[in-house]
Amino acid sequence: MKGERKTWKEKFSEWFRKVISEAGIVDYRYPIKGCGVWLPYGFKLRRNVLNIIRRLLDERGHEEALFPLLIPEDLFAKESAHIKGFEEEAYWVTHGGSTKLNVKMALRPTSETVITPMVKLWVRSHADLPIKIYQIVNIFRYETKATKPLIRVREVTTFKEAHTFHASHDDALKQVHEAIEIYKRFFDELCIPYVISQRPEWDRFAGALSSYAFDTMFPDGRTLQIGTVHDLGQKFARAFDVKFEDIAGNREYVWQTSYGISERVIAAMLTLHGDDRGLILPPNVAPIQVIVIPIPYKGKEELVNDACRKIVDRLRGERIRVKLDDRPDLTPGSKFYEWEMRGVPLRIEVGPRDVEEKEVTFVSRDNFEKLVCKEGEVVEKTKFLLTEIQKRLRERAWDWLNAHIFKAESLEKAKELIDSGLGIVHVPWCGERECGLEIERAVKARVLGVPSAEERVTGSCVVCGREGKFLVRLARAY
Amino acid sequence: MKGERKTWKEKFSEWFRKVISEAGIVDYRYPIKGCGVWLPYGFKLRRNVLNIIRRLLDERGHEEALFPLLIPEDLFAKESAHIKGFEEEAYWVTHGGSTKLNVKMALRPTSETVITPMVKLWVRSHADLPIKIYQIVNIFRYETKATKPLIRVREVTTFKEAHTFHASHDDALKQVHEAIEIYKRFFDELCIPYVISQRPEWDRFAGALSSYAFDTMFPDGRTLQIGTVHDLGQKFARAFDVKFEDIAGNREYVWQTSYGISERVIAAMLTLHGDDRGLILPPNVAPIQVIVIPIPYKGKEELVNDACRKIVDRLRGERIRVKLDDRPDLTPGSKFYEWEMRGVPLRIEVGPRDVEEKEVTFVSRDNFEKLVCKEGEVVEKTKFLLTEIQKRLRERAWDWLNAHIFKAESLEKAKELIDSGLGIVHVPWCGERECGLEIERAVKARVLGVPSAEERVTGSCVVCGREGKFLVRLARAY
Repeated sequence: MKGERKTWKEKFSEWFRKVISEAGIVDYRYPIKGCGVWLPYGFKLRRNVLNIIRRLLDERGHEEALFPLLIPEDLFAKESAHIKGFEEEAYWVTHGGSTKLNVKMALRPTSETVITPMVKLWVRSHADLPIKIYQIVNIFRYETKATKPLIRVREVTTFKEAHTFHASHDDALKQVHEAIEIYKRFFDELCIPYVISQRPEWDRFAGALSSYAFDTMFPDGRTLQIGTVHDLGQKFARAFDVKFEDIAGNREYVWQTSYGISERVIAAMLTLHGDDRGLILPPNVAPIQVIVIPIPYKGKEELVNDACRKIVDRLRGERIRVKLDDRPDLTPGSKFYEWEMRGVPLRIEVGPRDVEEKEVTFVSRDNFEKLVCKEGEVVEKTKFLLTEIQKRLRERAWDWLNAHIFKAESLEKAKELIDSGLGIVHVPWCGERECGLEIERAVKARVLGVPSAEERVTGSCVVCGREGKFLVRLARAY
Repeated sequence: MKGERKTWKEKFSEWFRKVISEAGIVDYRYPIKGCGVWLPYGFKLRRNVLNIIRRLLDERGHEEALFPLLIPEDLFAKESAHIKGFEEEAYWVTHGGSTKLNVKMALRPTSETVITPMVKLWVRSHADLPIKIYQIVNIFRYETKATKPLIRVREVTTFKEAHTFHASHDDALKQVHEAIEIYKRFFDELCIPYVISQRPEWDRFAGALSSYAFDTMFPDGRTLQIGTVHDLGQKFARAFDVKFEDIAGNREYVWQTSYGISERVIAAMLTLHGDDRGLILPPNVAPIQVIVIPIPYKGKEELVNDACRKIVDRLRGERIRVKLDDRPDLTPGSKFYEWEMRGVPLRIEVGPRDVEEKEVTFVSRDNFEKLVCKEGEVVEKTKFLLTEIQKRLRERAWDWLNAHIFKAESLEKAKELIDSGLGIVHVPWCGERECGLEIERAVKARVLGVPSAEERVTGSCVVCGREGKFLVRLARAY
């Protein structure tokens, strides 16, 4: 990175902080580090993103609910691996007014210990299963590392956590698979590319039998975990004594999964598609999909504004999210600047000449290509261009990720690739914990895990030289 | 109240607890008192209610946002009346993991001290005003009194708080008026009757110049506060130093209002329209507006089910929230029981005879009246009946409230009326604080305040005998 020649991708961390606040997404100037405000424009974006995940979950038979924030210490501590993983990260409420509480309470860092004891009250027999429930809530983590807007925060404002309960481990594993499929579709709709890894045993969710994670890659080559899916086995069921009567009349512990995503998804979406003019929002979720800007000439203001209003009405009639920017005190140029920065995917410009010729001019936010069409085609062309932009954003992001995935046959080569900031590196691994940890130490990277899709492994473990059982995925991670 | 002859209105408190849990609205068996779970059916009801208030606020230029939950003690303490009113009610976070925090943090009981310092960063000049913002969040109150589901809770899961900022007191007062109008429309849509009172000076929101409140009345004659609107003057602006440049170039403090509603609104709606068979949900917000139940006879099951499915498709096409209950293992009677209990406003029954005659039978949940119509009219009749039910629920509830508002000319008469559990009593009052407090003591009731609509006062103050300046409104209150 050399001063003047920095591209936006190189300096994206600084770019990110600046643009999310200028574009009206979030404001992190609240006096508690890692606690931010969703501004109205950002709030609408967030709502559109959440509506997608709600739809995907509802279609697959999940039901939305809402559980308490506070967890009494004794409840929180019931599953021993879970409390061990979370107790140092939890915020603790110790007083009500000036009265010391008998039992201190954690602010939920996740809700397994809240939801499991309630489900215990609801489950009698196999006929009550499966239960597939989710909530979208704020959670809290006492972060001691440097915080980063939307990525490493203390109040995670937007945690979608699903919790499911099943009559057999097989059913639970099918649910893990369904969750992975749902997340794939979700990230596709947000134009976010990803790799899916089974996390190594030393990096599982506290209390899980196995954890699968979605990671995407940031412009600096570092990965960001954007979704996780856990097979919880019967660990919480045993801790909370949640049993059901099976078909044969035996009382068995339920099998459980959980899976979550957070506002990191939004951070990834904003980062991956931005450029030096600001955000580029996928049309799917953009609060404003089309901004209509009149290009007035003296004496023709009303003519142009009228034509704009007609376009707005027609697009709105088709449920396209469209806005007319007819502020008289701003130049078209300053409006272009503002809406480009805020990431509106499509701009329509209408000048007096366009009105005369009964034409409309489009400019796409991602490649700035112009397209002129006849007034009568405005709805059809808008829909076409929005679809094209969505497709291009997704493809570009996937191309970029795929171009940054490598394979190495030795620790040296792996370290060289990682150090150069190029991305994700796969190396052969024997599957033993010690070799895995040694890889992390030697390469100074994180083992993301084993690719979830089967791939033929060739080569020998980069540490011990025994036959490679897995390819293991390495990256510098956020 | 005499044992066997209790009506559901008399025993409604017990009824309320039972029915909200059986109907799948909420479950308060979580181990922290006053913290409950919104079950899927209740969550949908809550969402429909919130969408109404969102629409009403958005139509009047409010914008939704989301602010942090945690308030550092120093920020919380900036406005002296506010902290005095809330510090004993707040939950305090003192530790992150095992580390003691330098500054303890309150869980928001309300967000004036969170939002005002952020708005300070956003306001420069009069051109930035007004700012009208709201959020729908959970808030916390350390309740020492007995908790009551949805009514007196420790985690208020559903607090809609609006905060507005203005360039003049006049503008702020207009906003108070607008807020009152918005709430009137909101409660009308939920079929909740109310009285509006300006709260007495000893019962204002901590930090307000004046507070207006909406109270409704429960079946036992006690009132419940369901919405409040506050003129905050410049108190918070001074405490947080929030200034703007006015047209003349002077730096002035902003003027502020806030107004809130909570899940108490839902509690009121559920209570006011229920009967001994369970809930009766206003069609506006019912998660299921129409339940279609086949009445099968042997050999004609498919015939009947087909006819039902056709009806469901047609209603769904008209965006009516309709559900088919074709569970084969339950009798029609047990389905009637379940959906009546859960408050579905309209039932459609279809038997083989109906299919033959091309007819449909409706039963309205509120009065159990039957109506038979031709198949071809099913959409039209459904819409008509839903509108009628909505209207009847609203009118009945208003009639009942209006029949329980009285006037008394003496403390004795007022106490007699209040003791008999009849409802709200107005008495003439001189307007002095001591007389107001004496009225509360003597009648053992709460002074709700002065009716917001002007009314000619006749009679003399029931305490001091001086000329009455106001009618003051009394009730036993929750």
